[in-house]
Amino acid sequence: MSNVLNYLITARRCEVEELQRLARTCQLVLTVGKLIHCLQQERGISNIYLGSRGERDALVWRERVAASEVAQQEFASWLEATEHDNALSNGARLYTRIAFALHALDGLPRLRADVAALACSPAASYERFKTLVGALLALVFEAADVAVDPQISRLLVALFNLMQGKEFAGRERAGGAAAFAMGKITREQEQSIEYQIEMQEQALRRFESFAEGFRNEWTAMQATLPLAELERLRRKLLTSHERPLDSDMADAWYQCCSTRIDGLHQVEIHLAQYVQAQCHAKIIELQKELDDQGQWFSQEEALDPLAPLATFSSSLDGGHLSGGPMDAGVGPHLTQSIVDLLRAQSERLQNLTQELATVRESLEERKLIERAKGVLMMKQGLNEENAYRLLRKHAMNQNRRIAEVAQAILSLTEILPDA
Amino acid sequence: MSNVLNYLITARRCEVEELQRLARTCQLVLTVGKLIHCLQQERGISNIYLGSRGERDALVWRERVAASEVAQQEFASWLEATEHDNALSNGARLYTRIAFALHALDGLPRLRADVAALACSPAASYERFKTLVGALLALVFEAADVAVDPQISRLLVALFNLMQGKEFAGRERAGGAAAFAMGKITREQEQSIEYQIEMQEQALRRFESFAEGFRNEWTAMQATLPLAELERLRRKLLTSHERPLDSDMADAWYQCCSTRIDGLHQVEIHLAQYVQAQCHAKIIELQKELDDQGQWFSQEEALDPLAPLATFSSSLDGGHLSGGPMDAGVGPHLTQSIVDLLRAQSERLQNLTQELATVRESLEERKLIERAKGVLMMKQGLNEENAYRLLRKHAMNQNRRIAEVAQAILSLTEILPDA
Repeated sequence: MSNVLNYLITARRCEVEELQRLARTCQLVLTVGKLIHCLQQERGISNIYLGSRGERDALVWRERVAASEVAQQEFASWLEATEHDNALSNGARLYTRIAFALHALDGLPRLRADVAALACSPAASYERFKTLVGALLALVFEAADVAVDPQISRLLVALFNLMQGKEFAGRERAGGAAAFAMGKITREQEQSIEYQIEMQEQALRRFESFAEGFRNEWTAMQATLPLAELERLRRKLLTSHERPLDSDMADAWYQCCSTRIDGLHQVEIHLAQYVQAQCHAKIIELQKELDDQGQWFSQEEALDPLAPLATFSSSLDGGHLSGGPMDAGVGPHLTQSIVDLLRAQSERLQNLTQELATVRESLEERKLIERAKGVLMMKQGLNEENAYRLLRKHAMNQNRRIAEVAQAILSLTEILPDA
Repeated sequence: MSNVLNYLITARRCEVEELQRLARTCQLVLTVGKLIHCLQQERGISNIYLGSRGERDALVWRERVAASEVAQQEFASWLEATEHDNALSNGARLYTRIAFALHALDGLPRLRADVAALACSPAASYERFKTLVGALLALVFEAADVAVDPQISRLLVALFNLMQGKEFAGRERAGGAAAFAMGKITREQEQSIEYQIEMQEQALRRFESFAEGFRNEWTAMQATLPLAELERLRRKLLTSHERPLDSDMADAWYQCCSTRIDGLHQVEIHLAQYVQAQCHAKIIELQKELDDQGQWFSQEEALDPLAPLATFSSSLDGGHLSGGPMDAGVGPHLTQSIVDLLRAQSERLQNLTQELATVRESLEERKLIERAKGVLMMKQGLNEENAYRLLRKHAMNQNRRIAEVAQAILSLTEILPDA
């Protein structure tokens, strides 16, 4: 009998370990989020520095570089301290993403040397930073795609979307700053900024829909963000219809966007801490149940060994395949309390699995869309915005979901003509 | 740079560990399969013993009990030798199933005492064994539902379906033996046997469709099974139209079914060994690649550190979300060979994930159908056959798949009336 209990406890211990790996994964996301934020700031200031041919913000640029270096060092130290077998959920894929990210980070010194020497254009510098941030976001995406606990997974998906939304906000800031500085905006720039705004809103909507338990905090923090001012400036920017823009507004735009982005970063930190706290709460809860179960060993002999087991096997539902309403009472000398434990554990795991499937479905859709965009960019020579527009247009015309169209495109990859 | 390589190697090592857990899971399935086979034999002989009021096969019964005990001991020893953290894939759910199985096995001594004392009916004994085998099959099902390697997962799904098909064959043997012994078959018995045959054929079809790489061996082994003779006896049994059956055929029926079941057990053993061999081959392959990568550390300095990286980021497709054809050359001092490694690893994992999703879908469907059957049995007081018939009828009437109907029923569980 105690063998049954032993393996139930082993099952619980496996769950605790999975949650501990998940908690470490949350730390990783927090560390990477900080690095992304620093790189976004460095990217912005590098553009100002390059755009002014080194006359503006040289000092601030150096400060930002130093801040990025500190954040990168923290990331490296975290990795070093954590690198051991089974440290992270989803190890094989996550470590591959880490390798990718480190590879991208290895390019930073050369990029910075180019910026310092004014040896590259603002646009080129911007693209290189964007790729770097993309590699780090891909890491966060992989971290969110773990099959452990649906509530934590949902929060990680929320966190990823928040971070992605912030990245689109950063790109909007850069695009608008360039236009205001130039004193005019081209049709192409307009379209690009509209795309960043739409993607931002999509990502933030997804963030909101997955951020259960965090919404009140989000509402409160959101109230402090300069949304009205941002919308006013967006209107100025996007309705100029090729009339000159007021270049004096460049600073106001930059400040307003930055305040909002910094605010989003604060939300991100709070959310990441919230996820970690949830993780630890779950670990403590499971640990407590484990301790309680330990006490049963001493109690079990005192319980009636012939207690009825009438509905024992209904708990097998999710996974049993023998069928039949099983009142035959196999294992009848087990106590009812252990049967309750078995049933509760089995039902809980079954529910977890189903909820997880839902969360992962939404991640799979993101992947499909990104991959289809990639195919269109490569095969048709489109930029990201237009690839997305094409997908959306097809979806609307055919009254299908964008993910479905993406799936159809991917299944045709082989036969699509190259651009 | 070697950091990038370090983490790629860590990712590979994670994969190797996952495969090692999977190899252990295969061993577990082999051990459980043997135990199931012994219990099926014991179940059959117990029925003969009980049906003859202890006059027939008392000695054989004792031999079978001893054989089951040996198999159960092997299962227990395997568990004991393997119980350590992270020993098995999918730990939390698998250990819960193991606890369930041990709980069911705890009931065996009492069941055997009842059989020995002729204190239960053949039907009651049969049901209790069926429940027990069901708990062990549920364990195998859980073992097949692992998200590691799609090829191995497919083979495990094949193995599970083979074992399930064999269980249905065992039930058919018992039902037919009872009818031949009685010298007549009721309409209800006929329906039950037809159901066992249909389920058997379904399970074996699924086994065939998932058993890639093993089909030639299956075809060869299948040729040795007494299929023509079985079909002849089935025809006699199911077309008697309430005329008397020839009781002298009871032995022929039992022998024929048993030969086939033993043959299926041999196929099962060969398949389980084949899966293990595939697992080990993959481990060796990955290990070899790991060793090769180790050599790169010494080579890398000799390679051109400025080799072009034009298409580096296209490999991010599956998971990156930054977008843009990234020829910006982040991390440009990395060697091409490392980039190739990164890309290959990323693509491989992406493909694995997609293939796995397909395999798991088929498992999810099985679960849905089993759970819907359970609901119908409980709520409508149906037996397993009729619950399945009802599902199939609805599916045919509505021109939908059985899994879809099952899903619909499950979503209505709360509001379905009790029987």
